[in-house]
Amino acid sequence: MTTRLSIEAAERLVAEAMQRAGTGPAQAASVARALVAAEAAGQGGHGLRRVAAYAAQAKAGKVDGFAAPTTERVRPGVLAVDAAHGFAFPAFDLVAGQLPALACETGIACAAVRRSHHAGVLALTVERFAQEGLVALMVANAPGAMAAWGGTRPLFGTNPIAFAAPLEGADPLVIDLSLSKIARGKVMAARQKGVPLPEGWALDRDGNPTTDPDAAMAGTMVPAGDAKGAALALMVEVLAAGLTGANFAYEASSLFDDVGDPPGLGQFVVAIDPVAIGGPGTLRRLAGLAREIAADPGTRVPGRRGIEARRLAAETGLAVEDDVMAAIAAV
Amino acid sequence: MTTRLSIEAAERLVAEAMQRAGTGPAQAASVARALVAAEAAGQGGHGLRRVAAYAAQAKAGKVDGFAAPTTERVRPGVLAVDAAHGFAFPAFDLVAGQLPALACETGIACAAVRRSHHAGVLALTVERFAQEGLVALMVANAPGAMAAWGGTRPLFGTNPIAFAAPLEGADPLVIDLSLSKIARGKVMAARQKGVPLPEGWALDRDGNPTTDPDAAMAGTMVPAGDAKGAALALMVEVLAAGLTGANFAYEASSLFDDVGDPPGLGQFVVAIDPVAIGGPGTLRRLAGLAREIAADPGTRVPGRRGIEARRLAAETGLAVEDDVMAAIAAV
Repeated sequence: MTTRLSIEAAERLVAEAMQRAGTGPAQAASVARALVAAEAAGQGGHGLRRVAAYAAQAKAGKVDGFAAPTTERVRPGVLAVDAAHGFAFPAFDLVAGQLPALACETGIACAAVRRSHHAGVLALTVERFAQEGLVALMVANAPGAMAAWGGTRPLFGTNPIAFAAPLEGADPLVIDLSLSKIARGKVMAARQKGVPLPEGWALDRDGNPTTDPDAAMAGTMVPAGDAKGAALALMVEVLAAGLTGANFAYEASSLFDDVGDPPGLGQFVVAIDPVAIGGPGTLRRLAGLAREIAADPGTRVPGRRGIEARRLAAETGLAVEDDVMAAIAAV
Repeated sequence: MTTRLSIEAAERLVAEAMQRAGTGPAQAASVARALVAAEAAGQGGHGLRRVAAYAAQAKAGKVDGFAAPTTERVRPGVLAVDAAHGFAFPAFDLVAGQLPALACETGIACAAVRRSHHAGVLALTVERFAQEGLVALMVANAPGAMAAWGGTRPLFGTNPIAFAAPLEGADPLVIDLSLSKIARGKVMAARQKGVPLPEGWALDRDGNPTTDPDAAMAGTMVPAGDAKGAALALMVEVLAAGLTGANFAYEASSLFDDVGDPPGLGQFVVAIDPVAIGGPGTLRRLAGLAREIAADPGTRVPGRRGIEARRLAAETGLAVEDDVMAAIAAV
């Protein structure tokens, strides 16, 4: 069974739950917008199901619900952002507010976010830049889940890469992918249900393929594209943690329980002014590329599905499952 | 049979061949350094075997061997680079010379190269930045070889991504991967030998898996990580061609024959000052990450193999196959 909620009602519900758990009103509103938008985009794994864990972490002090993120412009093109062990989304709001001006001035600029938390659906953050006419690339690290290629230790997170570009006369192009072949949430779901995993998803602690969800959780996820995905996950660690001063994946605590130190994860956002670089025809050229893709039967311009799902949800509301409603009410 | 040449002798041999084909002395020297370094790094597909095609293209005017690349600093953090339909390597030399100063000033800077040619082994270019203490990310597009996910038209190149980061007290970390599962050169090699392809490498013109090299050349390459590799290849098109004003993959002529207009490809390089962003301990932290990788049995820190191969070649020279020697002599 489900309950249908408008976007506004869902945001209110989440924000109130977060405030009950010990989160400031502005921070709770930011978290609520991000989780509800993720749910509306069809990314339930980063949506309302996260409220219970977020609330437990705020209660336990593993995340500081009252933290106020700060920025420092350490170079003309660099914002150093301290999320102060609060939720990531208030820090992303600051970045979305401040970074575009730097990018327009210097042509390319970046934000390095440290002492941060779960980055959620990166597509939603990079899309904000595209809505302002900027190209954005964002990477985030996550608690250890993948090994270096050939290894067994979970040194890297599933480490998403997201990218958005504005298109003349159309919704932006938005790419968002994690570097594991399959999201780790699917392994957790299989473990909860007690069903085996499909082959090729995960490795056990000795690096051998496994279909046992428990062995997979004790082991590592298979990277997307094998060695190539593992290499890109390493690149993300360097950018999102190495450059920001955040914890590396193997130093970060879990995002799913309320035990231990704050995760202290990092995110790195690059914003680029496409017209400054490519001239006034750039967004038209990008729209042409998207049209070539759309004209090839069987394909889809990345990002369209999520944008359309959010439009539909804005009109007809969200169908929230009863167990999710109950978990939020129980906070 | 092979001939053993010192690095210097190999560079002289290539530079002389390029000059005979109609390439300026400085441009020929740059091409020779790049192709010999690729060969020494074990990347024969981007090494001395390219001399014949490069020379034919210079003779035919498909590439302008005398072109002088130019740069314009269009924003504090942006170099717009016109390779002027010459070889890519003289343009990369300019970028390697000029971009670090911008990156140190603004914290992050980029070079957008248009009207360019074969980018060769990107690892060699990004490594130059790491040798100066900078982190570098580079992408290049290439003639159409991969489809958008689910499609059949070769809209994207195999589009490499490369990344380098300096490590305190160690060789840099260097990642370099193309976004097709397998290099297209391996399909060409199978076609020459008349042997079938392994399964999973390529699709025919209708998008169906094929092991026939001819059908594969008329079709598309399978992206690394399936839909994820295709999405990243699109990201590379946006950066390397969309932002630079270069041809998209589907507009670019072949790098292997001397027919038609110049390829007009593009490359995009981002250079980042890691210490400006992460503070003085950053390169030590990055070295620690590399040590964690190296400590996991069965793994390798990306880039080490190529750097060691080049060191060995500098000591003992290159073993060049007789057919390659003959092709260079025949220019």
